[in-house]
Amino acid sequence: MMDAKSSQKAFLEQLVAHRLLIPSGVPGLFGRGRLFEEVIERFNRLLTDVAADDGAEVVQFPPLVNRKHYEKSGFLKSFPHLAGSVFSFYGDQGEYMELLSCLEKGEDWSRLQHMTEVMLTAAACYPIYPMASGTLPEGGRLFDVYSYCFRHEPSDDPARMQVFRMREFVHLGTPETSVAFRNRWLERGSDLLKALAVPISADVASDPFFGRGGKMLASNQREQRLKFELRTPITSTEEPTAVMSFNYHQDHFGSLFDIRRASGEIAHTACFGAGMERVALSLFKTHGFVPAAWPASVRTKLCL
Amino acid sequence: MMDAKSSQKAFLEQLVAHRLLIPSGVPGLFGRGRLFEEVIERFNRLLTDVAADDGAEVVQFPPLVNRKHYEKSGFLKSFPHLAGSVFSFYGDQGEYMELLSCLEKGEDWSRLQHMTEVMLTAAACYPIYPMASGTLPEGGRLFDVYSYCFRHEPSDDPARMQVFRMREFVHLGTPETSVAFRNRWLERGSDLLKALAVPISADVASDPFFGRGGKMLASNQREQRLKFELRTPITSTEEPTAVMSFNYHQDHFGSLFDIRRASGEIAHTACFGAGMERVALSLFKTHGFVPAAWPASVRTKLCL
Repeated sequence: MMDAKSSQKAFLEQLVAHRLLIPSGVPGLFGRGRLFEEVIERFNRLLTDVAADDGAEVVQFPPLVNRKHYEKSGFLKSFPHLAGSVFSFYGDQGEYMELLSCLEKGEDWSRLQHMTEVMLTAAACYPIYPMASGTLPEGGRLFDVYSYCFRHEPSDDPARMQVFRMREFVHLGTPETSVAFRNRWLERGSDLLKALAVPISADVASDPFFGRGGKMLASNQREQRLKFELRTPITSTEEPTAVMSFNYHQDHFGSLFDIRRASGEIAHTACFGAGMERVALSLFKTHGFVPAAWPASVRTKLCL
Repeated sequence: MMDAKSSQKAFLEQLVAHRLLIPSGVPGLFGRGRLFEEVIERFNRLLTDVAADDGAEVVQFPPLVNRKHYEKSGFLKSFPHLAGSVFSFYGDQGEYMELLSCLEKGEDWSRLQHMTEVMLTAAACYPIYPMASGTLPEGGRLFDVYSYCFRHEPSDDPARMQVFRMREFVHLGTPETSVAFRNRWLERGSDLLKALAVPISADVASDPFFGRGGKMLASNQREQRLKFELRTPITSTEEPTAVMSFNYHQDHFGSLFDIRRASGEIAHTACFGAGMERVALSLFKTHGFVPAAWPASVRTKLCL
């Protein structure tokens, strides 16, 4: 464990020294330097190129979602510890004076905040399902989304940020088209990372479900082979970091948001997601902190 | 007032019909369609081009900031009603069962949320000041930032979103260089919007300070001519919407975050900010909902 900590610290120090990341004083919250952003943007374009002939509907969402949709999605039931809700001030002049006094004295002012109608997006695909409620066209639907996501898991590991970008492609259709979509992206993602000379391993995976029942849910998920991840060593060789995930949700979202196939049956869904900061970090880890010195093949692939 | 409401509703309906905005069920929270995003991206590139020779440091921040910095910034003192704080779940199995019960019964679960170390970014430039703490180089510093921002002001006006993007350039230096920077951008912004054939008016402006003392603060701000705005009619001709703002902060941020000039004096700062969604909306309002049918000069300028 000491080794993982030292390795995380050393990697972060290098990233900061090369102006790739800028610490904010909060674990897992960083500013990004120009070159870090450029690597992310170039990799993002690669994903666009790979999917160019798929005809995905491009929709962009801000990093917030309707709280009612979030509550309905099941995320709070499965991962309450990771969710972020947005609170705000609804007070009058009296409460305002109280707020000023708390700020002045450095006291807790959270009692002066109340829940709003929005929450922080936990995964880029979440706003898609309520929006797709209703009957799908023949052949289903395919979406292309990209947004900042929030997971409340403060960590010293630069590869585990609290706020990060996720590019996702999301398919809504039948069980067969969903699994085929998931498998196609597993191949595409794998090819892409290999072309960038990032060492990867593919594995069945599970989500970090909360609480006593969580272990069983995770074990079921693995047994049914619903989730796959591509992993690469960033701050640990023993516990490589997932940079892409490939998920078959069965009828989970279809049932919750009443998404139906043209035939009237409940739709099945699947998504491919790339953790953009993690992909960038894997490139810096593998090829060094100076993109100009990366292997020619990698630079060419990224148009860097 | 009825007219403004009808005009907002009609405009939003058109935006939705043309798949430019996608309602979320929460006022001021929208998904964005492909063409809406393309207009924003092209306009963003125009800003990059205009500033190409300035040598700004490009830094990107996620839509969250360190709460301690936020508290220090004075935003909560001036605009507590607009601020968004992030809360999360810190409970054990018992509180988890309570949360599930609330969700099941549709009851308020806000008591199970506690304040985290982060808040939603209120303006793209806010993370810059704590980061620039210390002594500036001779000539000061110039930053280029772009991020989603949050203001808790639910509204039916599509031009007043709760979450929107702001591109900013931020200068840190002397009173003279700050005012010169602000005035240069007032001219640049004005030229840019004129080239896009968006009808604008420039005016001294003030911020929406909270509470009894707020009016006086706003009046002082106007008297000292610290803030200018470029406005254009989007959902009202009587009350045109600000699409760009030009702010001279005097030594406000310099004092708070101990930013000093090479000479040792407290730095003065200024920023230029463009509300990207508002700029896009002003283009749709002025030239129609189909970019392919916009005037040739506008399309050429935007490389559309």
